[in-house]
Amino acid sequence: MANSKGFKLSNPHLTGEDFLYHIGLSTNDNLAQRFGDVKFICMGGKASRMKDFANLIYKVLGKPKNCEFEASDNDEPVLKDLGASAGRYSYFKVGPVISANHGIGSASMSVVLHELLKLTHYSGCNDVTWIRIGTSGGLGIEPGTPVITEQSYNGLLEPCYKQVACGREIVYDTKTTADVAKNLLECAKRLNLPAMFGNTVGANDFFEEQGRLDGALCNHTEEDKMAFLKRAHDEFGVKNMEMESACFTAMCNRANTKCAVICVTLLNRLHGDQVNVAKEVLKSWENRPQEIVAEFIRSNC
Amino acid sequence: MANSKGFKLSNPHLTGEDFLYHIGLSTNDNLAQRFGDVKFICMGGKASRMKDFANLIYKVLGKPKNCEFEASDNDEPVLKDLGASAGRYSYFKVGPVISANHGIGSASMSVVLHELLKLTHYSGCNDVTWIRIGTSGGLGIEPGTPVITEQSYNGLLEPCYKQVACGREIVYDTKTTADVAKNLLECAKRLNLPAMFGNTVGANDFFEEQGRLDGALCNHTEEDKMAFLKRAHDEFGVKNMEMESACFTAMCNRANTKCAVICVTLLNRLHGDQVNVAKEVLKSWENRPQEIVAEFIRSNC
Repeated sequence: MANSKGFKLSNPHLTGEDFLYHIGLSTNDNLAQRFGDVKFICMGGKASRMKDFANLIYKVLGKPKNCEFEASDNDEPVLKDLGASAGRYSYFKVGPVISANHGIGSASMSVVLHELLKLTHYSGCNDVTWIRIGTSGGLGIEPGTPVITEQSYNGLLEPCYKQVACGREIVYDTKTTADVAKNLLECAKRLNLPAMFGNTVGANDFFEEQGRLDGALCNHTEEDKMAFLKRAHDEFGVKNMEMESACFTAMCNRANTKCAVICVTLLNRLHGDQVNVAKEVLKSWENRPQEIVAEFIRSNC
Repeated sequence: MANSKGFKLSNPHLTGEDFLYHIGLSTNDNLAQRFGDVKFICMGGKASRMKDFANLIYKVLGKPKNCEFEASDNDEPVLKDLGASAGRYSYFKVGPVISANHGIGSASMSVVLHELLKLTHYSGCNDVTWIRIGTSGGLGIEPGTPVITEQSYNGLLEPCYKQVACGREIVYDTKTTADVAKNLLECAKRLNLPAMFGNTVGANDFFEEQGRLDGALCNHTEEDKMAFLKRAHDEFGVKNMEMESACFTAMCNRANTKCAVICVTLLNRLHGDQVNVAKEVLKSWENRPQEIVAEFIRSNC
């Protein structure tokens, strides 16, 4: 049953049995014992990337206690995908870390974020830091640079996330936690990796909302696109665009949890929309936020 | 290269080489020969469900020609997940059908829909029908009933989808194609399966936007929720709520393609929010839209 200590959500309706449908757990699954020690929850779009990150953490933390493994005859343990039974998301428990994928976009992310927040509530976790690790399109900076978000904007270039509830729109704050952001930048420096602070657009669409011209549908011109990107960059200090940061930070702020967003930029969209680098280079760029966050977790354990 | 005949998108920027990044294809991949015969594209949230649907179609169409199979030593061919290399979505080519998963929510759905629309454009397909197959929460109807959508609404109960592009919001129509809807209802009758027409809310959120109380975060009351659900049902003829129909129908309408949405209801939300039926019953309900759409395809081939 639920643990009475630790982190608590303020939703008064969370009483009694609860089935966390999309992550395949319920309040009958011994949550406090299995997940009560969690301190870091890291989320990113692709299942394979978050599996890689779980394995990286397992290595960096020196085979920590309290991991969940697959049943296996091998000597080498294999981290278990705890989301496999539900068939929607992948997530892994590695010592004090949960590494979870959230798919693409706010709606996909918010489903698993709601259920993981409830998991930390029912497990009685203490002082959890939530970090989104991802990829993004950059504005005016060198491709391969991880951007550590200070403020997230929506696709209308407003510094907020608009959540609809029961037919009404409610505006929420989308700042990240300054201490965590600062600490992540220090970690990047220690690893000799590039990284910088910046503001981030968390759009609810990959093509049109981010000004791309090459979707199936497009009613705007090259000039409209460049005016939009330059306005974001020049007026609002936007260094990158992705698809989840606005909803992610809004929900973490509402839940009173620490949060950060670190996404590597794969291209400079002020120069074009095609990613033109070799696969190995792309892979090494994608790994940079993972390495920085792994160093953050190692040094804060 | 691109085929000059058949379906054409009106986006003037689709010239030259194009890499359909999230589905792992490009205009150099012999698209017209491989996909030019496609007549039906069926999409749903879960990868496993759309794999099951691909196998159902393979059976119902009597092992059609022009499928894409895995390399295998077995006698029994295995349909190839063409999205595996890109690592984002799963999709299968079975004769005149593509069966694809789109994940959860509009943003996730729109990425793969943009790229599949471009696939039909570059392949020179003719007269493609697009069908979303899914699950949903019902309003005032017997659980297990598939709802064939007439009009989709957004979470503000407006009969439209609002697409942001370059910082501006544009309103698009969310009707489905009446002939296809009517034909689907006839198919259900032939199979002796329940089904009905109705309007559908395509919300961008599972918990708050659909009025649920049991998310991690909730600022509304049971009374707010019931007022919202009743307003949707009584004023707008909403029979079910899911998370993609508004964006799906808006994009299909903009592309001038025929479209339909058929989602089974897993519960009656006017009576509660918990799904309280045995797993086997749930599975048989989930199969109903697949069976109806398979009959639609069989009888229109």
